[in-house]
Amino acid sequence: MRESYHEELTSVVTDLVTMTDRVQTAVQDATRALLTTDLAAAEKVIGDDVVLDRLHDDLEQRCFSLLARQSPVAGELRTLVAALRMVADLARMGDLSAHIAKIARMRYPRGAVPESMQPNFQRMAVLASEMVEAAGRTLRERNVLDAEKMADHDEEIDELRTHQFRVLLDDSWNHGVEAAVDCALLGRYYERIADHAVLMGSRVIYIVTGLHPEGENWTIA
Amino acid sequence: MRESYHEELTSVVTDLVTMTDRVQTAVQDATRALLTTDLAAAEKVIGDDVVLDRLHDDLEQRCFSLLARQSPVAGELRTLVAALRMVADLARMGDLSAHIAKIARMRYPRGAVPESMQPNFQRMAVLASEMVEAAGRTLRERNVLDAEKMADHDEEIDELRTHQFRVLLDDSWNHGVEAAVDCALLGRYYERIADHAVLMGSRVIYIVTGLHPEGENWTIA
Repeated sequence: MRESYHEELTSVVTDLVTMTDRVQTAVQDATRALLTTDLAAAEKVIGDDVVLDRLHDDLEQRCFSLLARQSPVAGELRTLVAALRMVADLARMGDLSAHIAKIARMRYPRGAVPESMQPNFQRMAVLASEMVEAAGRTLRERNVLDAEKMADHDEEIDELRTHQFRVLLDDSWNHGVEAAVDCALLGRYYERIADHAVLMGSRVIYIVTGLHPEGENWTIA
Repeated sequence: MRESYHEELTSVVTDLVTMTDRVQTAVQDATRALLTTDLAAAEKVIGDDVVLDRLHDDLEQRCFSLLARQSPVAGELRTLVAALRMVADLARMGDLSAHIAKIARMRYPRGAVPESMQPNFQRMAVLASEMVEAAGRTLRERNVLDAEKMADHDEEIDELRTHQFRVLLDDSWNHGVEAAVDCALLGRYYERIADHAVLMGSRVIYIVTGLHPEGENWTIA
């Protein structure tokens, strides 16, 4: 039996929320791979990225199809346009998690992050994961306030990243070039995951209000 | 006098091409800032990024408005959906150029890239700039073959990046941690500019054929 238009639209949003859950798992698994040198977790994230890419292609196709067949207007058009962007955000967060897992795998059985830097990355990873979770909840509940709160988390991520550079570039850094390069790129990947979570929040605000949030916290760094 | 729907749609594409030209200039100026320690060029790229962001917001708004008012179908719907993504690609390439310029500014009056690495970055920058130019031409001329050729350029970028890591992480590297971290991030930024150019090419293929290109060269790394 053919689903009705509204059922199709609802199932796009439901599947976006499910995809967000999967991306959160990817971020958490990648972090476990990285900070506990868990090779199986690294392989899982890298393998699951293919599944996320397939989800992306399927959801994107359904959005296009709805746009083409139904010529939606107002709130429904906004939802579909926002869904197209969110599915791209989510695929990108999956890619970034796989990048993290690949660095973990490349350095195995050693750890990529020196012990002194682990608390910083641990905190960054918790924040990034919470932001992905908040993005999913925001989307599920259309809760604009939650979306705005995410920007604060993003600020702490920026501070952690600044701290990373201070440590990496200090004369007392004695872990060599490889660890420094790894940490610089890993920090970048977590930062970008957080940026995409913030963007997802801003897309929900757009669905609910029809407006794009203003202000520095919402621009892409 | 109010523009007709088709005139509005044509002017969106024309302005996307113009924005692509500006992004190419940003990539070139950022490279000059980086490789000839040209502080004025760095400031120009960083300042112009605000203009690119404004162009992005304006074009995005016009796409939304056309989608909402005209309920386009078939080729026109594809053009608008692709335009929304291209304008996001272009804004992102502008951000990445500004990131490059900021590293150049931060290290001024020293250069961020050691002399031995300059030919590698020079080549990477030429390829990235040519790819942005090809993306603009592809869009202007709806030339699918040109879009497919871009994937080859992207492969050379990947090889240059692999070479960078080999040099950075070799025991003979004697430029210290800061230069290594700078080079790793700079390489990442050029690589991402190239990725977005490839994506723009794939969006043109989508406009022309209605199909998303398949194959490894088209996935986002």
